[in-house]
Amino acid sequence: MADRAPFPLNAWYAAAWDVDIGRALFPRTICGKHVVMYRRGDGQVAALEDACWHRLLPLSKGRIEGDEVVCGYHGLVFDAGGRCTFMPSQETINPSACVRAYPVVERHRFVWLWMGDPAQADPALVPDLHWNHDPAWASDGRTIHVKCDYRLVVDNLMDLTHETFVHGSSIGNRAVAEAPFDVTHGKRTATVTRWMRDIEAPPFWAGQLGKPGKVDRWQIIRFEAPCTIAIDVGVAPTGSGAPDGDRSQGVNGMVLNTVTPETDGTCHYFWAFARNYRLAEQRLTTELREGVARIFGEDEAILEAQQIAMDENPGRIFYNLNIDAGSMWARHLIDKMIDAEPSARQLQAAE
Amino acid sequence: MADRAPFPLNAWYAAAWDVDIGRALFPRTICGKHVVMYRRGDGQVAALEDACWHRLLPLSKGRIEGDEVVCGYHGLVFDAGGRCTFMPSQETINPSACVRAYPVVERHRFVWLWMGDPAQADPALVPDLHWNHDPAWASDGRTIHVKCDYRLVVDNLMDLTHETFVHGSSIGNRAVAEAPFDVTHGKRTATVTRWMRDIEAPPFWAGQLGKPGKVDRWQIIRFEAPCTIAIDVGVAPTGSGAPDGDRSQGVNGMVLNTVTPETDGTCHYFWAFARNYRLAEQRLTTELREGVARIFGEDEAILEAQQIAMDENPGRIFYNLNIDAGSMWARHLIDKMIDAEPSARQLQAAE
Amino acid sequence: MADRAPFPLNAWYAAAWDVDIGRALFPRTICGKHVVMYRRGDGQVAALEDACWHRLLPLSKGRIEGDEVVCGYHGLVFDAGGRCTFMPSQETINPSACVRAYPVVERHRFVWLWMGDPAQADPALVPDLHWNHDPAWASDGRTIHVKCDYRLVVDNLMDLTHETFVHGSSIGNRAVAEAPFDVTHGKRTATVTRWMRDIEAPPFWAGQLGKPGKVDRWQIIRFEAPCTIAIDVGVAPTGSGAPDGDRSQGVNGMVLNTVTPETDGTCHYFWAFARNYRLAEQRLTTELREGVARIFGEDEAILEAQQIAMDENPGRIFYNLNIDAGSMWARHLIDKMIDAEPSARQLQAAE
Repeated sequence: MADRAPFPLNAWYAAAWDVDIGRALFPRTICGKHVVMYRRGDGQVAALEDACWHRLLPLSKGRIEGDEVVCGYHGLVFDAGGRCTFMPSQETINPSACVRAYPVVERHRFVWLWMGDPAQADPALVPDLHWNHDPAWASDGRTIHVKCDYRLVVDNLMDLTHETFVHGSSIGNRAVAEAPFDVTHGKRTATVTRWMRDIEAPPFWAGQLGKPGKVDRWQIIRFEAPCTIAIDVGVAPTGSGAPDGDRSQGVNGMVLNTVTPETDGTCHYFWAFARNYRLAEQRLTTELREGVARIFGEDEAILEAQQIAMDENPGRIFYNLNIDAGSMWARHLIDKMIDAEPSARQLQAAE
Repeated sequence: MADRAPFPLNAWYAAAWDVDIGRALFPRTICGKHVVMYRRGDGQVAALEDACWHRLLPLSKGRIEGDEVVCGYHGLVFDAGGRCTFMPSQETINPSACVRAYPVVERHRFVWLWMGDPAQADPALVPDLHWNHDPAWASDGRTIHVKCDYRLVVDNLMDLTHETFVHGSSIGNRAVAEAPFDVTHGKRTATVTRWMRDIEAPPFWAGQLGKPGKVDRWQIIRFEAPCTIAIDVGVAPTGSGAPDGDRSQGVNGMVLNTVTPETDGTCHYFWAFARNYRLAEQRLTTELREGVARIFGEDEAILEAQQIAMDENPGRIFYNLNIDAGSMWARHLIDKMIDAEPSARQLQAAE
Repeated sequence: MADRAPFPLNAWYAAAWDVDIGRALFPRTICGKHVVMYRRGDGQVAALEDACWHRLLPLSKGRIEGDEVVCGYHGLVFDAGGRCTFMPSQETINPSACVRAYPVVERHRFVWLWMGDPAQADPALVPDLHWNHDPAWASDGRTIHVKCDYRLVVDNLMDLTHETFVHGSSIGNRAVAEAPFDVTHGKRTATVTRWMRDIEAPPFWAGQLGKPGKVDRWQIIRFEAPCTIAIDVGVAPTGSGAPDGDRSQGVNGMVLNTVTPETDGTCHYFWAFARNYRLAEQRLTTELREGVARIFGEDEAILEAQQIAMDENPGRIFYNLNIDAGSMWARHLIDKMIDAEPSARQLQAAE
């Protein structure tokens, strides 16, 4: 099925951090669709197709007037539902005059858009990233624009052996590449669990733990199709019981990731790092955000180089190693979602 | 007729302001053709294909020698008629050795080139922009390179309701979007006439008039196919008789525009603003030129955004509003010119 | 034969100056292939396909470990022969896991790669540029990346009449464009010989000779297929016997050029200027290198403009002048090499 679409449309995709959207028109391309977002007077986020019905000028070049958007060329006005409410120099409005409005949910500090059939836009399907605003956790993060297929970021996160080679100075060590791991999966999820027992903590975690001695380290990577990955990470002193469920002597973080396709070959990568210790230390929050940003910058360079190489070798068949087991499951679940929605793709083609 | 050419070739196109062309080789692409222009010793403008017959090096990389051009690579020499008069290391010259020479007329302060069949290059067909050098008017202007189909600029100028939304701080006001207008047309022209009676003058015109009170404002847009638009604009105190032909108490400008295709998706936009009052005030001439340049910069941003959106939606069918009546006539006249010259297009394909 | 490949693969191509390659990974694209080069512990140069077998990440993003390369993503290790010797998290290595290794010869201060069938990689076929490290000559040069088909550089060097028009301020003079020349050829070589007798020396050569009076000037251009050109140049006082073989009163240089295709439309141009006089003057070596670099910069601008013009006129048939006799022979020899290797091209297509 060579012409399989690169992403499902019937899914919630993070489109922005909550604070990104205010009383200004905010354009962003999501799944190949130009969207303009803004907050209405009541604080709700509206998301419209970013192209005037009349001559396609991006509505984001216009301005907000109350809860509506005024096109910056000929002044056509569209309400938050996408319906045209004013045309210049004429009293009757063509009843077909509207732009597409996308279902919106604001949750876990992100603004999520449903890009497919609005009738299926069930808010219960928003991926779980609750740590990002749970008072038991302190979290902060950023948005990276990466010039690669969003699935390369998923691959990257589903196999952390790359930490050894890409992030050797911070979180990588030989143990990550050598420790065995388990992969399990559900209907929409796949989980990779790796315990590295009785090892030297890598520099980053040694600093967080603040105690001498060997540690047990864990990485529990949970993928939720099509593109959200929450990674439960941490270390605890060897012998303190972490592998058996008692993490009380250790330190625990959640690396939160959701990767939204922009186009076939680019994506918006939203990430945050949450911790459940030293919650009130703003300085630590900043240090962690900046530190993770540096690490993810190393991934970005690798991912963009990989995309360029793949673009140059379009027919290439890839060989999978043991370490690819997690990403193979993730891609299988993505493909299942895509294959389940032929009608959505046909609708898109017919637009 | 999906494959209709985007522009006629049998037409005079402004290629430069008169002062742009001197004793230096001036390259510019007109209707997809690379052209090099220069003045001969007698001051006449020559326009040659900008590609040496031998190895295609742009002749504009070479130099002028008398009335001729010397190629900057191997020294082939071409006269102002395009005929090769020298080849290195050989005495006989291949009789086929020539480059295309384009008919040239210099008029209304512009250099006009005829891009199609030279036998049809009648100087009487040069569009009327005489205000640009008429001693009864003071005029000055500029050239803008716009990354859009020249016809989007024509659309823009044929419907001035956009002033309300694009130029609200200067020349736009609500009246422009609300006042009724008439459209008339001839064999090669279309005219949109709008009178806004008894209105508040917008900031720009209030300043030009320098008198308090309501005004009658006019905009008479005259299109001459394929791409020249002269707009008669002005205001006069309400009751002073302007709608009936007596403009003596008002102020009158001519917005002169000619938009030459560079490629299918880019154009050279030559414009000037002429006035018939306070002719000797050089300061006012400069102020008007700079002020109009700012306003046209607003259009440029809109037009380039529109072109990008259209390129992304190649099959899109556009809906027309009442305000589009003028541009619909303009495009109809352009299409008629294109359809009248199948042989010119076939010739081009056969080149 | 419109689909003839643009370059033969069964040939030695200069890929770098010797000093460019050390204990760091050096990526370069040669004949459309991404290659990474480095020196092993014993000083030998290794040249591998610059794409990991696993996910195509350029190996040049990784690091050297001993004589091997470690991929910068998942840590796969490849030896200097291209065989994978380590995979993360698994003990058995897929026997197909390897990347292509290219035959390498280091000679005349260049690193040469054989891009085609390794079985035919005979070191005796490395082009002769021995002046570049012959103790009887002092030589220095540079690498230029030119955005043109490598054959345009060959054309440029096979016809030096262009010196008159491109390099009029240094080495060009009217005599070059007017003097007759001879063309001879062998199985893999073509030679253009031009003697300009009893002429004024151009500024560059007048300076090198340092003697007043007329000179005999020579240019003996030797092309070795597919892309190496050594030009024997110099002047001697008229009457001192140079045309008859006695150059002892003159000054002699060798302009050494080898032009390696990077892609169909770009190339790496390696050049050096060698002289057999005032060998110990380091200042002169620097002056000559900088002077020639300035001259070749003039060619670069011409060649890139020519390539753009050719790309815009894909079907164009070129007319040849007398001055093109040398480059016609060069291209004929290149075409013969390309036509002799159908299987190599088919192999490439089948890769």
